[in-house]
Amino acid sequence: MGIGQDEIDLIDAYWRAANYLSVGQIYLLDNPLLREELRPEQIKPRLLGHWGTTPGLNFCYAHLNRVIKARDLDMIYIMGPGHGGPAAVANAWLEGGYGEIYRDVSRDEEGMRRLFRQFSFPGGIPSHVAPETPGSIHEGGELGYSLSHAFGAAFDNPDLVVACIIGDGEAETGALAGSWDGNKFLDPEHDGAVLPILHLNGYKIANPTITARIPEDQLLKRFEGHGYHPIMVSGDDPVYMHGRMAEALDEALDRISDIQRSARVPGAGPRPTWPMIILRSPKGWTGPKEVDGVRIEGTWRSHQVPLSQVRANDEHRRMLKEWMLSYRPEELFDENGEPVPELRDLPPVGPRRMSANPHANGGLLLRDLRLPDFRRYGVEFQGHGVHTSEATRVLGHFLRDVIRHNPDNFRLVGPDETASNRLAAVYEVTDKVWDAQILPVDEHLARRGRVMEVLSEHLCQGWLEGYLLTGRHGLFSCYEAFVHIVDSMFNQHAKWLKVTRGLAWRRPIASFNYLLTSHVWRQDHNGFTHQDPGFLDVVLNKPSEVVRVYLPPDANTLLSVADHCLRSKDYVNVVVAGKQPALDYLSVEEAVWHCTRGIGIWEWASTDGGGEPDVVLACAGDVPTLETLAAADLLRRSFPELRVRVVNVVDLMRLQPESEHPHGLPDAEYEALFTSDKPVIFAFHGYPWLVHRLAYRRRNHPHLHVRGYKEEGTTTTPFDMVMLNDLDRFHLVIDVIDRVPGLAEKAAHIRQRMVDERLRHRAHTREHGEDPADIRDWVWPY
Amino acid sequence: MGIGQDEIDLIDAYWRAANYLSVGQIYLLDNPLLREELRPEQIKPRLLGHWGTTPGLNFCYAHLNRVIKARDLDMIYIMGPGHGGPAAVANAWLEGGYGEIYRDVSRDEEGMRRLFRQFSFPGGIPSHVAPETPGSIHEGGELGYSLSHAFGAAFDNPDLVVACIIGDGEAETGALAGSWDGNKFLDPEHDGAVLPILHLNGYKIANPTITARIPEDQLLKRFEGHGYHPIMVSGDDPVYMHGRMAEALDEALDRISDIQRSARVPGAGPRPTWPMIILRSPKGWTGPKEVDGVRIEGTWRSHQVPLSQVRANDEHRRMLKEWMLSYRPEELFDENGEPVPELRDLPPVGPRRMSANPHANGGLLLRDLRLPDFRRYGVEFQGHGVHTSEATRVLGHFLRDVIRHNPDNFRLVGPDETASNRLAAVYEVTDKVWDAQILPVDEHLARRGRVMEVLSEHLCQGWLEGYLLTGRHGLFSCYEAFVHIVDSMFNQHAKWLKVTRGLAWRRPIASFNYLLTSHVWRQDHNGFTHQDPGFLDVVLNKPSEVVRVYLPPDANTLLSVADHCLRSKDYVNVVVAGKQPALDYLSVEEAVWHCTRGIGIWEWASTDGGGEPDVVLACAGDVPTLETLAAADLLRRSFPELRVRVVNVVDLMRLQPESEHPHGLPDAEYEALFTSDKPVIFAFHGYPWLVHRLAYRRRNHPHLHVRGYKEEGTTTTPFDMVMLNDLDRFHLVIDVIDRVPGLAEKAAHIRQRMVDERLRHRAHTREHGEDPADIRDWVWPY
Repeated sequence: MGIGQDEIDLIDAYWRAANYLSVGQIYLLDNPLLREELRPEQIKPRLLGHWGTTPGLNFCYAHLNRVIKARDLDMIYIMGPGHGGPAAVANAWLEGGYGEIYRDVSRDEEGMRRLFRQFSFPGGIPSHVAPETPGSIHEGGELGYSLSHAFGAAFDNPDLVVACIIGDGEAETGALAGSWDGNKFLDPEHDGAVLPILHLNGYKIANPTITARIPEDQLLKRFEGHGYHPIMVSGDDPVYMHGRMAEALDEALDRISDIQRSARVPGAGPRPTWPMIILRSPKGWTGPKEVDGVRIEGTWRSHQVPLSQVRANDEHRRMLKEWMLSYRPEELFDENGEPVPELRDLPPVGPRRMSANPHANGGLLLRDLRLPDFRRYGVEFQGHGVHTSEATRVLGHFLRDVIRHNPDNFRLVGPDETASNRLAAVYEVTDKVWDAQILPVDEHLARRGRVMEVLSEHLCQGWLEGYLLTGRHGLFSCYEAFVHIVDSMFNQHAKWLKVTRGLAWRRPIASFNYLLTSHVWRQDHNGFTHQDPGFLDVVLNKPSEVVRVYLPPDANTLLSVADHCLRSKDYVNVVVAGKQPALDYLSVEEAVWHCTRGIGIWEWASTDGGGEPDVVLACAGDVPTLETLAAADLLRRSFPELRVRVVNVVDLMRLQPESEHPHGLPDAEYEALFTSDKPVIFAFHGYPWLVHRLAYRRRNHPHLHVRGYKEEGTTTTPFDMVMLNDLDRFHLVIDVIDRVPGLAEKAAHIRQRMVDERLRHRAHTREHGEDPADIRDWVWPY
Repeated sequence: MGIGQDEIDLIDAYWRAANYLSVGQIYLLDNPLLREELRPEQIKPRLLGHWGTTPGLNFCYAHLNRVIKARDLDMIYIMGPGHGGPAAVANAWLEGGYGEIYRDVSRDEEGMRRLFRQFSFPGGIPSHVAPETPGSIHEGGELGYSLSHAFGAAFDNPDLVVACIIGDGEAETGALAGSWDGNKFLDPEHDGAVLPILHLNGYKIANPTITARIPEDQLLKRFEGHGYHPIMVSGDDPVYMHGRMAEALDEALDRISDIQRSARVPGAGPRPTWPMIILRSPKGWTGPKEVDGVRIEGTWRSHQVPLSQVRANDEHRRMLKEWMLSYRPEELFDENGEPVPELRDLPPVGPRRMSANPHANGGLLLRDLRLPDFRRYGVEFQGHGVHTSEATRVLGHFLRDVIRHNPDNFRLVGPDETASNRLAAVYEVTDKVWDAQILPVDEHLARRGRVMEVLSEHLCQGWLEGYLLTGRHGLFSCYEAFVHIVDSMFNQHAKWLKVTRGLAWRRPIASFNYLLTSHVWRQDHNGFTHQDPGFLDVVLNKPSEVVRVYLPPDANTLLSVADHCLRSKDYVNVVVAGKQPALDYLSVEEAVWHCTRGIGIWEWASTDGGGEPDVVLACAGDVPTLETLAAADLLRRSFPELRVRVVNVVDLMRLQPESEHPHGLPDAEYEALFTSDKPVIFAFHGYPWLVHRLAYRRRNHPHLHVRGYKEEGTTTTPFDMVMLNDLDRFHLVIDVIDRVPGLAEKAAHIRQRMVDERLRHRAHTREHGEDPADIRDWVWPY
C-alpha cells in the first residue's frame, strides 16, 4: 500500500499527542497545556506510573489506527505491558471514547486537566490498564496472559483481528512462553486472526530481557519454530520507524488476508504461517536521554518515572517541561485544548475505534446460551443410594447438547482430560480443535471444534477468559489438584469481575465455570501429588459477590448445578464432582429442589423423625456424602434409639452468615438445620478448616466437628484414602460416639467394633489390593 | 567413540530387563519370572500405572549408563514423565541400589516378587517417581518442572551432568516452555551441564502432542532459537535406535566437554550452544501392538495399562504373558532371579549409579551455611517506634555477607525484583548471572553470580528447588501477590518434604525460604492487581511439620527471623516483610527475644500495667502493627483509664493449638496473652479469616475480632489502603469502643471523632494526593 510523508507526519503528530498526554498523566495536577509557568504544586506529590513501555504502546496504537481505517478492520488491542496504562487512556481520550463514558473527562482543556489529575491519584483511576479503561479486556497487572487472551478473543470471531502487544519482560514468563502454540488451535476459516507484536524495548525493571540479548538469527528461528512469520521493525529514529512499521503492518495484514481468503474457499489450504511483528525500539523512547548524569532513555531506568524529584528539584521540573514541550503541544491541541482537526479526524470512528470496539466490552455482544432442559438427561431414579452413575459422564450428555445448540458460542477447554474426565459424549457432535498434523489413527481431531485440549492449564484458563470477556460462554474441566496452576490467573479474573460490577458501562459477561473432577478422593492411579482440594480456599478469598462453590453429591444434582452455572453472569463458579461410579441419591425433581435451596435435610436418611436430633451428620461432596450415609446406616443399626439428622450441602456459600455472602443462610435457618447446641459431625470434601472459616460466626460453632482432607494420601484404594484422613464411615461413627453426651459410656463395645472394622479393612487391602466387598458394594439399604 | 554390536546387544538386554521389570510391576502379584502358569489371582485386582512412557525412560537410562561408565560421568537423571515410575524403580533394582535401601526388595526372585507387588499397591509404593524412589529429586506428579529442576541441580556443580527427560506432553506446559531459557543462566565454567532429552513419543492421555505434529524443520528451529544444538534420534527399530542413540549421546557429551574445556581456560569463549537430544520413539514401545482390534503401541491408548482385563480375560492374560516373555527373561535373570552376570556388571558402580548418586539425596552433601552474626546488621535502637528503616534494605546487608561467606553454596532468586525489593547491597559482593549479551550500560551482570533474576516465578521456584534438593541453600524474594503463580509448585515441594520426613535414608535438606515483600499494603505504584496476601492460606493447607510463616514487624525482627530460617532444614519458611520506610519497634536484643517466643506482649505499648486488660490489641505484620500502635496511642489519649494490652505476633503458627502445630501455644499460655474472655481486636496482614481458622479452637474465640485485607483496593495512598479495608487506627478504635462492654455509651463523642477523622483523611487525599502529615509522620510518642 505504501505510505507517504504526509501520512507519516500525521501519524507522528498523533503519536506525539499520545505521548504528551501520557507524560501529563504521570506528572501533572494542573496546567495541562503548560500555558503558564510550571509550579511545584502543579506536580503530583507521589509520582506513580510506568513511562518506559508507554511510547511503544502509543506508537503501535497510532499505526494500528492507520490500518484499521485503511482496511476497515474490526480490531481490538491487547496490551501485555499494561503497566503503561497512560497509553491506553491517552488514546481513548484522543479518540473521544473516553469522554463518552466518563463525561467530565471531556476532550478539552478542562477534561485534559481531569485526565491528568485522576491518573494514579486517590479517587481516580489505577495506574495500569484496568477494567476502568475503555477498550481493554486485559488487566495490566500480572504479566503472562496477553497472548492467550488474544487467542481466546479471536476464536469464533472470524472478522476480528486481535493485535496483541507482548512485552519482552512478559515474554519470559511461563504462561506467555507456552502461549505461542495457540496458532495450532486457531482455525483460519471460522476464527479471527491474532497479530502478536513482540515489543523488544530491551529491559525489565532492573535487567535486560532475554529476547533482546540473543542473536537475531536465534530470535527469528525461535518464532519460525513456533510456526510464525516474524517481521522485524527495528530502530530509534521516529521517521524511519514510522515508515518501517507501516510497511510491516501492511505486510502482516496482507498475509492475514491471504490466509483467511484461501482458508475460506472450499478445500482447506495448508496450515497457515501467521505473521507476527518484532518491534525493537528504545525503552522510554522520546523521554529524557539523561538525568543527573545517568542514561535514561534506552535503559531500564526509564521503567517507571524518569524524573523523580520534579516537585522539589527545579532542574527536574525544567526538564519535565522541556520534555513535554518537545512533543510540540501547540501543534497538537487547539485553543480549547481539543486535538486539532487533523488529529481528531485521524482515528477510526464509532465502534471501529479500539477504545470503543464492542468486543472489548463483551457483555454488549453476549447472547444467552440455548440450553436444553437438563432434566431430560437425569439418571432414572430407583431409590435413594441404590443405583450408581458416573456423574461427569451424565453431565457429558447434557454438554453434548449444549454444544449442539450453540455451535459458535460455547467452548469446552481442558488439559487433555475431556475423555479422562468422562465427558466424551461431546465428541458425538463436535471435535477437538487441532491445526497441526492429523494422522489416520487420530480420533475427533479437526481444524474446527468446540473442545480445546492442550496440556497447559494456563492456556486453557487464558483462552477461556479471552473468550468470555469478548461475550461468549464456556467451561473449563480440570483435575482438581492442578487447577492450582492457575490460582493467580483466577485471582486476576475475579478481581476484574469485581471491578466491572461497579462500572455500569461494562455489561455483564458469562461466568467462568470450573468443573473440578478427578478429585482428591479418587486419585487411584496417581496418589499424593494429585491430591489437593485447596483451590476452594483460594476462591473463597475473593469477594463474595463474585465467587460461588458447588459440591453436588451425585449425577442429578450435578446436572442441576451445571444448568444454573451456565445461565449465570459475572461469577466464577466452581463445581466439584466425581467421575467414578457413585451412588445416585436424588431423583431429578429432588435434585432441582435440593440444589435450589443449596442445602437441606435428607429425611430419608435421618432418624430424627422431623424433630430435634441428638446429632447432625453433615456432608458436602460426593465421597463424604457416601461415608456419611454409610455412617448413618451403621448408627441406625447400632443405636436404634439415636436421633440422627443428615444434612447435605451443595452450595458451600450457604454456610456463611447472610451478612458475608448473598447466599448465606440467616442464623435462624442455619440453626433449624444444624441445631443451636447439638454436635455436628461434618464430612467435607476439602480441607476441614474451610468449613470452620465459613461457619465460625454461627452459634453452634463450638459443637461443629469437621473431617476432611488433611494431607494424608498415597496410591491406594478409595476407602483407604478416606481412612487415612479419618473421614471414613467407621471414624464418623466414632466421632458421634465421642461427641453425643452420654453415648461413650454406653457404647464402648460399638466403638471398639468400629476400631476393629478399620483394622479389618487395612489388613484386607494390604492382602488383596482392593477394598473389601462390603465396602465397595455398599448401598443405602432402606 | 563408536559402539560395537556386542555392546548394543548388552544394552538391549539391559533395556529388555528393565522393560520386563516395569511390566511386572504394573501387573503381577506373584509368579515374577513366569516360571509357572499365570493364574488370575497372580494379577493385581486394580491395574494402576503408566506404561506408555516407560520403555522410552528405560531406553535412555540404559544408554546413559553406558556413557557414565565410558566417561566416568557424575550424572543424575530427572524424569519429567515421572508417571513412568516403574522405569525408575526397575533400574534402581537392576543396579542393586534399591535393595541396599529397601532390604527386603532384594535382587533375587523373592525380591522381584516384592518389587512387583508393592508397586501401586496399598502399603506399597506410589505409581509415580516419588521421594521413595532412589535417585530422584523430581516428583513425577504435576508436569512442567523437570527442566528448571535440572538447571537448579547443575548450578555450582561443575562436574555434574544432569540428564533431563522432558515428555512431549510436559513440553506444552507454560512452566516447561519457559524453562528452555535456563541456558542463559548457566555458567559453563563454574556450573555443571544440563542435557535435555525431549522425548517425542507423540501422545498425551488422549491426544497427540504439539511438538510431535509440527514439521521437523520447525521443531529444530524452535530449539535452535532457544540456543540449543538439537540432535535427532528417530525411529522404532531397536537395533537402529540403539546405535543412533549411542552416537547422539557421544556427540552431545563431546560437545559438553568441549564447551566446558574452552570455558575453563583463561579468556571466556563465546556463549555456548549446548546440545540437546530429541528422541522420537513410539509410545508404549515394545508393548502390545494391538488389543481387541485397536492399535495400542504408538498411540495414546498405551498411556496407562494396555491390557486392562488381565484377571478376567484369558486372552488378555495370554497376551500379557506373551508380552513379558518377548523380553526373553530366561536370558536376563538366572536361576535365583538375579540379573545374569553380564547385566549385573553393565551399570556403573557405587555412587556413579544414577539411583545412588548423592546429588539426588542432597542432604548427604549439605553443608551448613556460614552465617555472620545477624545482630551486627541491626538497626541502632533509638526508642520504640521512633526511627524508621526499610526492613528489606537492612536485610540486604546481612544477605550480602551471607553471600560473601558462601560463594558456592547459596543463591538468591527473584523475578527481576532484587533491587526493587531493596536488597541491592548484595551487589557489593556479587553479580546477577547472565549468559547472554552484556552491554556497557548494564550493571552487575556477569556470567557468574549469586543472584538470579528472570521474569518467571516458575523458573525462580524450579531453579531453587533443584538447587536445594541437591544440597545447597537459597532464598526466593518475590512480590507477595504474584507468588500465587507458583502455588502449585509450592504444593508439590511441600508434599515432597512431608514424604521425605518419613524416609530415614533421605537426609534433611535446607528449607525453602520465601521472602514476600512489595506486599498488599504498599502497592502504591500498582494497585488492586498486586494485592493478594493469600499465599499464606495456601501454605497453611500443607502439613504443619513442614510449613512456617513469619510476619516480622520491623527491620530487627526481620533479621532475626531470616537468620533462623537460613539455619533450618526441611521446612518451607514464608517471611512477609515490607520494603518501605517503616518504624523500628525493637532493639536487636528485644527482637531476638521476641522472635524466639514468636509472640509477645509489648508492655511499652500497653496500659494494662501487667494486670488483666480490658481489651487486647493484637497485630501481625508491619502495617497492621503500625495501625495497632497508633490505635493504642489514640486510646491512651481518649481513655486514660482503659487497660489496653498490645500483643504482637511474629510466628503465625503460635496461634494454633499445640495439638495442631509444633509451634502452637498451649491453651494456658494463649490465654495468658489473649485472656479468656476479653475482646481481642486483631489487626492482621492477610485475609482476616485465616486468623479465625488458626484460633477457632481457643476458648476466647467468640471474642476475637479480626481486621485484615478484604479485597478492597486500588492505586491510592498507603493510609487510604488500610482505610478501605477497615484496618486503620481510627477504625480499630471504633472496634474497641463497640466491643468493650460499657464503652460505647460513654464514648459516643469519641467514636464520632474517629468517624470524622476518617472523613478528614479521605477529603485530604482526594484533594492533595497524599496522606495528611500527621498520619504520614506518626511515631510512637511515649
